[in-house]
Amino acid sequence: MTDKQEADDPTGATASSTRLGRLPGPKTSVCSRSYFVVVMVFFHVYIINVIVLLLYVHYSSGQEDARPGPPRDTSGVSGGKQNPLSPRPPSKAPLTRDISLPRIDGIRVGHVQKVSLVPGKVHEMRTLSLKPLLFEIPGFMSEEECRIVMQLAQLKGLMESQLMVQDGQEELAKELNISPEEIFNLLDINQDGQLQLHEILTHSRVRDGIWLTPENLQEIYAGLNADKDGNGLLSLEEFRLLSADAFQRFLLQQGVKRSQLVRNSRHTWLYQGKGAHQVLQDIKTRVTRLTRLPATLVDLSEPLQVVRYEEGGHYHAHHDSGPVYPETACTHTRLAANASTPFETSCRYITVLFYLNSVDGGGETAFPVADNRTFDEVSLIQNDVDLMDTRRNCDKSNLRVKPTKGKAVFWYNYLSDGKGWVGEQDEYALHGGCVVTRGTKWVANKWINIDPDFQRQARYEQLVSHRPEDEDDEELTSNFDIHQEL
Amino acid sequence: MTDKQEADDPTGATASSTRLGRLPGPKTSVCSRSYFVVVMVFFHVYIINVIVLLLYVHYSSGQEDARPGPPRDTSGVSGGKQNPLSPRPPSKAPLTRDISLPRIDGIRVGHVQKVSLVPGKVHEMRTLSLKPLLFEIPGFMSEEECRIVMQLAQLKGLMESQLMVQDGQEELAKELNISPEEIFNLLDINQDGQLQLHEILTHSRVRDGIWLTPENLQEIYAGLNADKDGNGLLSLEEFRLLSADAFQRFLLQQGVKRSQLVRNSRHTWLYQGKGAHQVLQDIKTRVTRLTRLPATLVDLSEPLQVVRYEEGGHYHAHHDSGPVYPETACTHTRLAANASTPFETSCRYITVLFYLNSVDGGGETAFPVADNRTFDEVSLIQNDVDLMDTRRNCDKSNLRVKPTKGKAVFWYNYLSDGKGWVGEQDEYALHGGCVVTRGTKWVANKWINIDPDFQRQARYEQLVSHRPEDEDDEELTSNFDIHQEL
Repeated sequence: MTDKQEADDPTGATASSTRLGRLPGPKTSVCSRSYFVVVMVFFHVYIINVIVLLLYVHYSSGQEDARPGPPRDTSGVSGGKQNPLSPRPPSKAPLTRDISLPRIDGIRVGHVQKVSLVPGKVHEMRTLSLKPLLFEIPGFMSEEECRIVMQLAQLKGLMESQLMVQDGQEELAKELNISPEEIFNLLDINQDGQLQLHEILTHSRVRDGIWLTPENLQEIYAGLNADKDGNGLLSLEEFRLLSADAFQRFLLQQGVKRSQLVRNSRHTWLYQGKGAHQVLQDIKTRVTRLTRLPATLVDLSEPLQVVRYEEGGHYHAHHDSGPVYPETACTHTRLAANASTPFETSCRYITVLFYLNSVDGGGETAFPVADNRTFDEVSLIQNDVDLMDTRRNCDKSNLRVKPTKGKAVFWYNYLSDGKGWVGEQDEYALHGGCVVTRGTKWVANKWINIDPDFQRQARYEQLVSHRPEDEDDEELTSNFDIHQEL
Repeated sequence: MTDKQEADDPTGATASSTRLGRLPGPKTSVCSRSYFVVVMVFFHVYIINVIVLLLYVHYSSGQEDARPGPPRDTSGVSGGKQNPLSPRPPSKAPLTRDISLPRIDGIRVGHVQKVSLVPGKVHEMRTLSLKPLLFEIPGFMSEEECRIVMQLAQLKGLMESQLMVQDGQEELAKELNISPEEIFNLLDINQDGQLQLHEILTHSRVRDGIWLTPENLQEIYAGLNADKDGNGLLSLEEFRLLSADAFQRFLLQQGVKRSQLVRNSRHTWLYQGKGAHQVLQDIKTRVTRLTRLPATLVDLSEPLQVVRYEEGGHYHAHHDSGPVYPETACTHTRLAANASTPFETSCRYITVLFYLNSVDGGGETAFPVADNRTFDEVSLIQNDVDLMDTRRNCDKSNLRVKPTKGKAVFWYNYLSDGKGWVGEQDEYALHGGCVVTRGTKWVANKWINIDPDFQRQARYEQLVSHRPEDEDDEELTSNFDIHQEL
């Protein structure tokens, strides 16, 4: 300590102090200039530090209070709640939860709140439903921005969203070695010993990417002579005579029309990282502000998907992301997960859907069970009315959003876990694109991928942020190209 | 400053320092014992202060993160977010909003979260509905506590919750000078020129505290010979012939049974402030922890209401607190409000309902429209089934809570305003007590009163906290005795 004192002392008292320091007395003055300077320096540093800390406490408290405020933490999982005085530790303990994902409060259906997304403009955000938590923001994108996104997508080229027939899908029953009696029992919801049309459709509405209607099923019965007594029901005997892949083989022989597929559209992906068109980067920034999520989470999510539906196009009701069990991996964090996970889903916490044009007829986004009191998969087909069929029953959906150029809607595909992170799947987030009856429909989707397993998300962020080629934005996101499309 | 230095200096250097301080030179040592001690004291004080502040920052951030944490602010409206270093300003600017009311996240129906209400015990809180936001907590009170509350209520004595006939209620139509044609038009919901029974009941289910059923109405028609063509409908001509108070006069002539009233129970109020029985104070503390609201708000709310339903007792569906318009005053903040407010309601933000015994038969708490997709007052009576009638149609309610000794349920009667304060009334909070078919039913109610007008609530708290007779807890709460009972 003596060395430091000597170096700090600006009064030139070094010689005398070292000399006198060795002597037992006499007692020296505490009113010397050197004493005064040192004390004053300490005193000022102390006061400044206290003021800075008080300001920090006040500032961070104030932000916490204003719930629907600007995004307060845009530094990602490991950087949340940084202390201004202590330098950020170089990822020594990044796996502890020091961040809470904000979740916007819907209050009630019809509630309108103002949001600040672009400088000098205020947008209105209206709550459309609470289950799922769903909002609409008119004028989220300008006409010019919509035009540019559509042009960029056309320049890149759009591909079929669903191939006409997907081969190689093995029957699950074959793999699991279940007997026809057991399958019959599983399908027979009301346990009356007969399979009604809707009982078959509830469990296997989609075969090889083909969407089955009650009429399709009756055609298949007739073609295969499956329903021998012609009562429209399958008994166990009739069911036993059908081979496991009879349905599939019949459908493929018949030939499949585009309108029979689960989705009938073309799409492409547009990257939004460094070097991307400014409009694409602006949209990403605006999505970050809208969702109030850390920028890192939005940056590391899937690219922008642009979709074009021609006249007659549709997308039957589906979930953008599946349920998450302990053994389920997320596509985006796979490289941080254990190798052997039997299930995988895209872990799209939020869907932001942009309407790039106003559609001449049809093309609404339908939420069949929005704000239903209960969710019951079985009651989705009743009296042979399939609520998930967006070519026929959009008018029976609880909620339909009209496509209007520049409008954005967004919703949460997962609930909160009650501790500030992603929880269970929200089954009410079921939605589809109604058939386009006139003109073309252009939309874009921005998904925000978050792993419900915080540890995996944190490890993933750590992995991608510490890669040597840190600039390479394209490569970071291009792994999403191999996402399953369904 | 010199005085303080002298007092703090333990080295006895005072005399020499003051003496030498007056001399221009020679330069004195900075290695003297006195210098060293003073600097070290400053240095340690500085280090300790920084550590304390860092701990505070860390602690408060941590609490903010853990959403369902312990109540972090129990100091009331004007004392929210106190800084530990700066003394609480003596209510210089108490009307600025520096507090945000916590609102518990229901996540989804069936979600269970652990709550810490009493030391050494963890309670489970289950979400029963999201509209209204409703929870149940089994074992909230011990058997012993339930017994004591019932005994205290009996010692104090219970009074009729509703007098048999309330006089002096003038017809609103008379005051407002509306013609019979206009009233007819208002009542005729489907505008078919006829008044169906349910159209009359939707608008005036209660007359002079008497609950009308479709059968009552038909008896009145018969008694008054109102429905001359006997088709069960009132035409404009038939309606015109009825005088404005014909219904009332007929009902009073007939004589009224207790079961015909809106509510059929007896109740009393138990104060929970200083000097009250320890069990009552404990319950108040537990409610503060449960709701995570500032203790001041709970302290300044209504006393505990204890209610006893005999066999045959009931309470038809109602809202504990009404809608709030700009011209609506709250009963509890009246002394802080403008004198002339046309409407008044009790502003019960939260209802906590305690079951003090397990009922032998019936007596459930029914929420007829909990989690309904939409709220439609008109559809509450359909096909002559009145969902608000808890003597007849409890089985048709969306949700029923069984009375179990010690269990508490609580719900929010108002939505959030999206900015951390009380917002609009939650219409879905409609509830009632089903008829007790066997035995007696004992419940207690704790209401937490908050004015949706923050300024009025703050002024009110300021007024009551600055009263000269600050100890007088009884008087503070006794103004609630004059609350309207309906």
